[in-house]
Amino acid sequence: MNTIGVDIGGTKIAAAVVSPEGEILNEARYPTQAVPPHRLIETIARAITEVQGDFEVGGVCVAVPGLILAAENKVIFAPNLHEIENVRLDEEIGSRTGLKVSVENDANAAAWGEFSFGAGKGIGHMIFITLGTGVGGGVITHGVLLKGAQGAGGELGHVTLDPDGPQCGCGNHGCLEALASGTAIQRRAREVANERPSSALGRLAIDRQVLGEDVTRLAEEGDEASIFVLEETGRWLGIGLAGLVNTFNPEVIAVGGGASRAGEWILEPARKEVYLRARSPSRDLVEIKEATLGPESGVLGAAALAPGADTENT
Amino acid sequence: MNTIGVDIGGTKIAAAVVSPEGEILNEARYPTQAVPPHRLIETIARAITEVQGDFEVGGVCVAVPGLILAAENKVIFAPNLHEIENVRLDEEIGSRTGLKVSVENDANAAAWGEFSFGAGKGIGHMIFITLGTGVGGGVITHGVLLKGAQGAGGELGHVTLDPDGPQCGCGNHGCLEALASGTAIQRRAREVANERPSSALGRLAIDRQVLGEDVTRLAEEGDEASIFVLEETGRWLGIGLAGLVNTFNPEVIAVGGGASRAGEWILEPARKEVYLRARSPSRDLVEIKEATLGPESGVLGAAALAPGADTENT
Repeated sequence: MNTIGVDIGGTKIAAAVVSPEGEILNEARYPTQAVPPHRLIETIARAITEVQGDFEVGGVCVAVPGLILAAENKVIFAPNLHEIENVRLDEEIGSRTGLKVSVENDANAAAWGEFSFGAGKGIGHMIFITLGTGVGGGVITHGVLLKGAQGAGGELGHVTLDPDGPQCGCGNHGCLEALASGTAIQRRAREVANERPSSALGRLAIDRQVLGEDVTRLAEEGDEASIFVLEETGRWLGIGLAGLVNTFNPEVIAVGGGASRAGEWILEPARKEVYLRARSPSRDLVEIKEATLGPESGVLGAAALAPGADTENT
Repeated sequence: MNTIGVDIGGTKIAAAVVSPEGEILNEARYPTQAVPPHRLIETIARAITEVQGDFEVGGVCVAVPGLILAAENKVIFAPNLHEIENVRLDEEIGSRTGLKVSVENDANAAAWGEFSFGAGKGIGHMIFITLGTGVGGGVITHGVLLKGAQGAGGELGHVTLDPDGPQCGCGNHGCLEALASGTAIQRRAREVANERPSSALGRLAIDRQVLGEDVTRLAEEGDEASIFVLEETGRWLGIGLAGLVNTFNPEVIAVGGGASRAGEWILEPARKEVYLRARSPSRDLVEIKEATLGPESGVLGAAALAPGADTENT
């Protein structure tokens, strides 16, 4: 049955009616910054009603960038989205839309999207990692989305890789997120630009703030300093993935998110590190590749997790 | 239905007929060193036949300290047990005993034992870590034993915690196993004994080789050097567990194996590290405690995984 997926992002709320085959039948987007914080729930409900139009749907799943208590469909921590913290989103949105509503972490939803319609379609064991401002993750084992006891599982960005490494937004030191997110790439780019002021990266950093996409572009133009930053990022990613390969013995690891646009610049050193650090047969089986759905993975995955979806994960 | 569990260890082969409630109805043990390497399969089969006696059983599961290809019931890597590598153990043992036979990694079997009858009884999400010569692990999520695509999942001892740390038996550097196994405790005890020759640990090390149990005993007697070794081990264990807490959101982490006899000397610093490094709500929920079945966890878990067991994990 058709369902609605909603993806709450840092810059936009996306809502879509999605068919059981993963086709987007109708879509709506609202820039988040235009929404007053105390009207977020109202705006989400309006987006759902608008996008639904005359479509008959089984239900809605709302994907939220934060920590979820699954049993209560409650968001318990969502930076910058305080209105939706500690309220029963299923009830608040359900009463406004007349639809059955569930809630999921955004990275888990994106993982389920890639599993249902993208890089992990047709397989049983997959890990999804999203490299954005932060690092999110989702795991499918034996065809089931790993939620954990409270729905807080799959926080793969906060696995410690370097106990004395840079501080992470979560308070810990040396998390995968602190070493391989888009934010980490920017931080390392600044540091390396200072160390190598005559490199293309160093010269750019004198003019303006260096963005992640600058580093990729300069790497493509052959700048050694930029290549160094991306390779180092890829090695840290690989150290994290090696542990996950030994833990989960997955068939596919799909890497998405903005920083994944650096592509092979980070995936190739990540693969090498996995081969050095993970064990056979897991390291020989796993395919590490770019996710295929791009920014749609969240809305598609949320729809596939919604009440009434053929692919609902229960 | 009653089943038979077999646990192949470094020093003994244990076989037991086990009831669906986890009661051992009959038991047999053979010292491994008395078995010529080329007669291992024969000895396992004889142990099964002897322990079975007149019991009617559903089947047998053989727990092996090595890497398993589950689909083929094949052991692909088992140090010191070369006769069982790359043979179909289900067929070799099945034809000799007339019973249905499955194969599992020993730590996965022990995890399933603790889940079925021990520290994780009645819960849905559990991690088992065994600190012995090496470090093994097993994970139960949503009531299902995590095997991964090939049956090689749950290799929790080989998650990297310190990329430039001590070399592990697996070839990688800084694995949990290289930092928190019984072997790692012995190595650190030697190093710390050299650094602090006037400590009780230092004085003992002049007389003879220090064993893991010596370190625990000396810690209990108040030796600061020994306490330091165990606390450091506990911190590394905690760094590893913090990542697993974020990944799996488990209710219980049960720690077993010989080195777990150091008990609170390592568990208390491990809990502190988890609290510092893992996220809410997962870090608040998880209970980190000693496993309860001791060395019987393997044989009990294997029996509970055997064909025909009520608790068989399929």
